[in-house]
Amino acid sequence: MTKSFGSDNHAGAHEAVLRMLAATNVGDAHGYGDDPWTKQVSQDLCAQFGAADAYFVFNGTGANVVGLSLLLHPYEAVICAESAHLNTDECGAPERLLGSKLLTVATPDGKLTPDLVATRLAGLGDEHRAQPRAVCITQATELGTCYSLAELAALGEFCRTHDLRLYLDGARLANAAAYLGCSLADLAAQADVLSFGGTKNGAVAAEAVIVMNPDLTGAVPFQRKQLLQLGSKMRFLAAQFAGLLENDTWLANATHANLMAQRLSAGLRDVAGVTQRYPVESNAVFAALDPRLIEPLQREWGFYVWDEPQNVVRLMTAFDTTAADVDALLASVREVALSRV
Amino acid sequence: MTKSFGSDNHAGAHEAVLRMLAATNVGDAHGYGDDPWTKQVSQDLCAQFGAADAYFVFNGTGANVVGLSLLLHPYEAVICAESAHLNTDECGAPERLLGSKLLTVATPDGKLTPDLVATRLAGLGDEHRAQPRAVCITQATELGTCYSLAELAALGEFCRTHDLRLYLDGARLANAAAYLGCSLADLAAQADVLSFGGTKNGAVAAEAVIVMNPDLTGAVPFQRKQLLQLGSKMRFLAAQFAGLLENDTWLANATHANLMAQRLSAGLRDVAGVTQRYPVESNAVFAALDPRLIEPLQREWGFYVWDEPQNVVRLMTAFDTTAADVDALLASVREVALSRV
Amino acid sequence: MTKSFGSDNHAGAHEAVLRMLAATNVGDAHGYGDDPWTKQVSQDLCAQFGAADAYFVFNGTGANVVGLSLLLHPYEAVICAESAHLNTDECGAPERLLGSKLLTVATPDGKLTPDLVATRLAGLGDEHRAQPRAVCITQATELGTCYSLAELAALGEFCRTHDLRLYLDGARLANAAAYLGCSLADLAAQADVLSFGGTKNGAVAAEAVIVMNPDLTGAVPFQRKQLLQLGSKMRFLAAQFAGLLENDTWLANATHANLMAQRLSAGLRDVAGVTQRYPVESNAVFAALDPRLIEPLQREWGFYVWDEPQNVVRLMTAFDTTAADVDALLASVREVALSRV
Amino acid sequence: MTKSFGSDNHAGAHEAVLRMLAATNVGDAHGYGDDPWTKQVSQDLCAQFGAADAYFVFNGTGANVVGLSLLLHPYEAVICAESAHLNTDECGAPERLLGSKLLTVATPDGKLTPDLVATRLAGLGDEHRAQPRAVCITQATELGTCYSLAELAALGEFCRTHDLRLYLDGARLANAAAYLGCSLADLAAQADVLSFGGTKNGAVAAEAVIVMNPDLTGAVPFQRKQLLQLGSKMRFLAAQFAGLLENDTWLANATHANLMAQRLSAGLRDVAGVTQRYPVESNAVFAALDPRLIEPLQREWGFYVWDEPQNVVRLMTAFDTTAADVDALLASVREVALSRV
Repeated sequence: MTKSFGSDNHAGAHEAVLRMLAATNVGDAHGYGDDPWTKQVSQDLCAQFGAADAYFVFNGTGANVVGLSLLLHPYEAVICAESAHLNTDECGAPERLLGSKLLTVATPDGKLTPDLVATRLAGLGDEHRAQPRAVCITQATELGTCYSLAELAALGEFCRTHDLRLYLDGARLANAAAYLGCSLADLAAQADVLSFGGTKNGAVAAEAVIVMNPDLTGAVPFQRKQLLQLGSKMRFLAAQFAGLLENDTWLANATHANLMAQRLSAGLRDVAGVTQRYPVESNAVFAALDPRLIEPLQREWGFYVWDEPQNVVRLMTAFDTTAADVDALLASVREVALSRV
Repeated sequence: MTKSFGSDNHAGAHEAVLRMLAATNVGDAHGYGDDPWTKQVSQDLCAQFGAADAYFVFNGTGANVVGLSLLLHPYEAVICAESAHLNTDECGAPERLLGSKLLTVATPDGKLTPDLVATRLAGLGDEHRAQPRAVCITQATELGTCYSLAELAALGEFCRTHDLRLYLDGARLANAAAYLGCSLADLAAQADVLSFGGTKNGAVAAEAVIVMNPDLTGAVPFQRKQLLQLGSKMRFLAAQFAGLLENDTWLANATHANLMAQRLSAGLRDVAGVTQRYPVESNAVFAALDPRLIEPLQREWGFYVWDEPQNVVRLMTAFDTTAADVDALLASVREVALSRV
Repeated sequence: MTKSFGSDNHAGAHEAVLRMLAATNVGDAHGYGDDPWTKQVSQDLCAQFGAADAYFVFNGTGANVVGLSLLLHPYEAVICAESAHLNTDECGAPERLLGSKLLTVATPDGKLTPDLVATRLAGLGDEHRAQPRAVCITQATELGTCYSLAELAALGEFCRTHDLRLYLDGARLANAAAYLGCSLADLAAQADVLSFGGTKNGAVAAEAVIVMNPDLTGAVPFQRKQLLQLGSKMRFLAAQFAGLLENDTWLANATHANLMAQRLSAGLRDVAGVTQRYPVESNAVFAALDPRLIEPLQREWGFYVWDEPQNVVRLMTAFDTTAADVDALLASVREVALSRV
Repeated sequence: MTKSFGSDNHAGAHEAVLRMLAATNVGDAHGYGDDPWTKQVSQDLCAQFGAADAYFVFNGTGANVVGLSLLLHPYEAVICAESAHLNTDECGAPERLLGSKLLTVATPDGKLTPDLVATRLAGLGDEHRAQPRAVCITQATELGTCYSLAELAALGEFCRTHDLRLYLDGARLANAAAYLGCSLADLAAQADVLSFGGTKNGAVAAEAVIVMNPDLTGAVPFQRKQLLQLGSKMRFLAAQFAGLLENDTWLANATHANLMAQRLSAGLRDVAGVTQRYPVESNAVFAALDPRLIEPLQREWGFYVWDEPQNVVRLMTAFDTTAADVDALLASVREVALSRV
């Protein structure tokens, strides 16, 4: 298989992650997080985020559902972008497992704004309507864009003013930190709860639920267990983050992936039949392709068509995408474009 | 930390599991199971079980809930032993996530029988009662006992006669196979769906849902995803089972753990103040201790008091428990018994 | 209170309903539907609808959730109009109680078409997406429009072709029958399950779940009970429908309400500052009002502003709205329009 | 049909209830409780109970689920008697709709005590266990017994000490008030939330959720709506309670039913082959019958066999059971006993 641009989860695991798994595999340890590795890595994450506590779970949908479970009664709703992973790619898990309704908003670029959120607040206080209670944003978004710190601050202010809780889906938070050049604490400052994705950053299978609001930690152990996200040999989840935190590997991985996306974006700029969509602010490039290009390129490079009617495809880079991989893809695109368009 | 007898999940991972994780970490692979490793290992499991299909999930509670989701509407109930993990140790996940009621039965040894199951069938057809629809048994049980193949056959026959589905919680299925000297297919033959535990057998975090009844496979992908048990880099879940299946490591691991439990049980037989409970048929030894023994021994060996009022403790062995570990525990027990009783 | 045009549930009960309640109150009867009145009225409904069975429940949201519970697993989704009561006015009950996602579609007039339904089928077979499985239409719609029999037939055909189930929310089915001049069987012919509303037609509190597809009746008793919609003194729910069925009172009530809406619509046609929206095909008139009209009229007549930004109000008639009531409202509108616009 | 002793819901409606339904049927009223009748009757109930607020719902299971929804997160459990209606007769509605586990306790007489409740508290703080959070008691119990005020006070004290919430299922609260000769406020004093049953007392279909703890009222409208218990023409639910509250009809009805149970109990005392169970403290008589008596008597009188293996039947009286009805049943029992035993 040539390097896949289909998803950052097509990549394998970073060597530091596997190394730390092995390093943690020494003797016995208590289960369910009562072990020194889990305690240390949770503490390290809390320090980086300025968080009340941090908890490990298995996957991104699990992190989102556990995180939102801390914020919502079943009659309360989540306002999110139509394009949010929560809405499009979780098979209705939030609805089934939380009982909550999603109130979606169309956005130009995957990002909510206070004005967009405000359009879904009409039913507040009306017993016939699910009550808007949490706002869910993704950082970096599913469309590869990032909220600036100013945009985050505006959303945070809006949420506090309107008694809404802010949840941040950080499956690609590392990419946002790399793009914005800010700390994880800066990114998390407005949120009540967020996730910090490990898997797309080089882990085997590990995500963290970061709880900023100290009033919300009490329920986490029970929600995590009841929602099927409690691992028994927890040290091996912690170890994966230990690998990513070591020498700021998480940031290096994200920075590299972002750079590869920039290289790809730059290389596509002058190709006939290719029109880029959305600013490239993380590790994804979205582009509308001349329909004649899609089939031959997809056969070789296995990316996803994101928007069928608009012929928009998504090209993703990962921590292990090389400049040569990008250049090979670019060469292939140019060749096909030349012959077909 | 001295060797823990607290739980088989206090053990680390078997070297074959970590080795296969590393071996699988080569280049890119499609996510969510569309990769050669997942296909191969699923196929290998199907062959061993005579199953319609096999699916990887993250943990035992997840396997149980996904497995039972294939068998039940929310108004249908599961008959299980009071001591079932499903009832005692899953924080109400089955009730919340399936909507189903558990109809529990007290048992002398953790095992259901057709007669015990029959005591919970009274409400069939009565709209006021959750409808008994599935029977859940654990093999080996939470009390360390095993269903014989004849007992399984009797339960299977009873279920077929009464239009009940049979689910088998196989978190320690390997230990049962080792004890009974039979194949995985023998153990699974009566079940509609079962789980096959990897974690307690030496995996990092991996369980399999084995679907025997071919009519039930269609819903698995959606239930697994919606129930938060779909891993993106699935190859790393498959790899763990590849490690356990290689050279029948799963069986060697279970055989060894069972042998250590036998050694422990034999050594405890003549100790004053120690009365064993339940036949030792897997990797657990239950014993009522003279109350004066519990605190000093627990401080050193970290086992769980299973039944507080009865002073019954649980001592578990694992794939990596050594004869020396057992002998050290036995020496410690004898010493404390001598000084206190 | 002057006659309310706020909702058809502002009306009281029809005299035939109260009379039948009293007539049924003779001696004892078995509970939960095992009584002669329930049997008779269910049978009468089955005859009118050509249905497999009919069941009484308490309210419209209850009818919708019980009805859809027969059609869906939690990982399956319902396609409905954005304006569907199911989506806008049930406080997230379908999501919480069924676990299912609603896939909504914007419509010009509250009506789905095969083409509109087709826009939500993209995720079929993709485990990350809730699986489209049922289509929910409202007849008459929340916007006062009706599906013609041809439109229903086209939707039915589309559903059968695409393995989708059709649910019909018939909270105002009587009004549709009156408008279309067809039988209840005609209206139900394409549906797998539907509701037949009593409350808005003159009942105290009674709705029926009509099951057309005979394969679906088995689960109803259990779903109805578990979903809190089983009444113990069922004869009093049946009695309300007995009152409405007597001499086709249901049809007379609906025909009259529709006629009053026509009278209102005709009277508003030439009023300055009033622009009607949607064809008037049942008992609702929607109109965009000059903003200056809304406050003074609403103070007196208590209707709802349906669409705040567009200044659209909803005016509803009921079985007991009189021509004089309509004329009084019209006079009031004209007076205010004259003085303000 | 001769008078049924099968259930108090075999009775019809009290004349005051139907009279008030008719009296309320005058002109229009706003829906969903925003009407003068609902306000007045809620206020009257609050005065009688010393409650923070009172809300009308359709049936007893609905009242229980709405009431408990105010007290529990899904990972929290309810401690209740094995014989509780919540556990035996609600088809798993609490589990499905709340996501909560029921922790049941066997009782000699349907009544919990602090000691019995304490047996289910072991898992507190353990993330693997559903967390005990509410205690549910039934007053009068399903076995016809009543908690004394002292017993209630002891349970209340225990709950406050252990941070547990107390819910009281008052489907037959009127019968308890009549038996104990105390006020509704006395009965409710220890509870956070309770139900007050109208249907078994002579209503058509109406129950009230009484919220004592003022911190808990905010969520009621949304929980009631989402849990399918919000009636649109609410005045007709209020009217039923208006009928029962008028001249303390509720108390007269319950007092009479209790008296008839006493008459029945006294008459059965000397009959061969009849052994009464449980003190008769409300409107139920439980008796073990010589097996030869059951079939002939049941054919005529239609009561339920409560405990098949023990041949225990339940005989219930209602507000409209007459002394002649009781005497006729007694004559029949004596006659059959004479001929068979």
